[in-house]
Amino acid sequence: MTGKLYIVGVGPGHHDHMTFKAKHAIEESDTIVGYETYVNLVQDLIEGKDVYRYAMTQEVERAHQCIDLAKEGKTVSLVSSGDPGIYGMAGLIYEILAQSGWDPKNDLPVEIIPGISALNSCASLIGSPLMTDFAVLSMSDLLVPWDIIVKRVEAAAQGDFVLVIYNPASKKRIHQLQDTRKILLKYRRPDTPVAIIKGAYRESQSIVITDLENLPNYSDKLGMISTVIIGNSSTYTYHDLMINPRGYRSKYHLEEQTNPKLKV
Amino acid sequence: MTGKLYIVGVGPGHHDHMTFKAKHAIEESDTIVGYETYVNLVQDLIEGKDVYRYAMTQEVERAHQCIDLAKEGKTVSLVSSGDPGIYGMAGLIYEILAQSGWDPKNDLPVEIIPGISALNSCASLIGSPLMTDFAVLSMSDLLVPWDIIVKRVEAAAQGDFVLVIYNPASKKRIHQLQDTRKILLKYRRPDTPVAIIKGAYRESQSIVITDLENLPNYSDKLGMISTVIIGNSSTYTYHDLMINPRGYRSKYHLEEQTNPKLKV
Repeated sequence: MTGKLYIVGVGPGHHDHMTFKAKHAIEESDTIVGYETYVNLVQDLIEGKDVYRYAMTQEVERAHQCIDLAKEGKTVSLVSSGDPGIYGMAGLIYEILAQSGWDPKNDLPVEIIPGISALNSCASLIGSPLMTDFAVLSMSDLLVPWDIIVKRVEAAAQGDFVLVIYNPASKKRIHQLQDTRKILLKYRRPDTPVAIIKGAYRESQSIVITDLENLPNYSDKLGMISTVIIGNSSTYTYHDLMINPRGYRSKYHLEEQTNPKLKV
Repeated sequence: MTGKLYIVGVGPGHHDHMTFKAKHAIEESDTIVGYETYVNLVQDLIEGKDVYRYAMTQEVERAHQCIDLAKEGKTVSLVSSGDPGIYGMAGLIYEILAQSGWDPKNDLPVEIIPGISALNSCASLIGSPLMTDFAVLSMSDLLVPWDIIVKRVEAAAQGDFVLVIYNPASKKRIHQLQDTRKILLKYRRPDTPVAIIKGAYRESQSIVITDLENLPNYSDKLGMISTVIIGNSSTYTYHDLMINPRGYRSKYHLEEQTNPKLKV
């Protein structure tokens, strides 16, 4: 008998921003697997289920365990915060399944339930920074060589992309965002807006709106649950908001009202 | 008396992938505004409310209308598919408010409800393409000069970013994706995986997994509700899935099991 494996994104952590599908998948599952902090986010939904809590850095073990449990016939939800399809567990699960010769159509059913990722949740809290093209980068060089990340920062800077930076820093990983700032300052003005969003939609939420020049003053706001959004040449701040206009350098005419066929 | 303005993302179109907060905001509102197709997506939630349906290309009028209604005391939900913070209505609303001298803390309350955007929904349907750094680009040159978009495609190609392309083509706008393909072929192999996802999570959903060389054969799959995801140098296909490994070129050891402190 074969079960099913859901890879579920529960969003930023508050149930408000979870999707109906994510809740239903968790409710339908008899087995819940996940990093301890993520499992705790859905504690109220998992009473009476088999729950496997893992510590950080056990991703490979966790992935194998999920697949094995589902193959034994369990309906398994591998839960994570955010969206498992963005720097999440979806990749590792598919890599392991592909290596084992898994046939997606006839073998174990696997379904990814997308969630509100940090780029969605953080942008919503600070204005409208993602109205234009943007690049999403992780500063973690644990699995990606740092020279590759540097090349990408250079490219994103040259392309005038807004930057969304996941994993900007940890206690031991400090220089990466500092180096990124130096690269960006070759291409962007010192007053380019920067937002640091920590713990979006959680009780601990804190938001700083600053700029490239002053970013080093806020290193205490960086960490494993922080996201950094750096504006491009069109981004401006208004009170505590980072606004990107529709279109390039606000060429749009706000008074323009073509074809005003209001339908009520 | 001042009302409230919610800018609500309802996700790909199926209620399953809407957040609880999006549903609650719509339920709490007495007034619903939105492009006709989007409003129809939530028809069952808006019985008895004042509903303002707009045709396409009336974004500016729609934004002014929402702000005016909320200032008159209405609780207004401006609904859109996907995430209003990604190429959505959030920018126009904030631009108009900023020009009017709006004070976010003391004047009209505005709240963005993030939703599952095309990048989230489409990635979830085709495997794990967004395990690595990616660039999000719109091919629409209505509001952005085409030479700026070309510069960004070049930069994204040089940075070896996975590309997520919004608005890849319309009936009259054909050459942009073709040109993008030609630029990418200067940097990437002809067999670089490409996915075209049309109508994600809707009844009309169709998915094509192809590659850069064969992309021109599928121009009939491109349109206003299509998204194109183009792999980077690490992306591979497995059956009908596009997989990006964790880390650069799968340097991760899938057998590695450090610190196996399983907590049940």
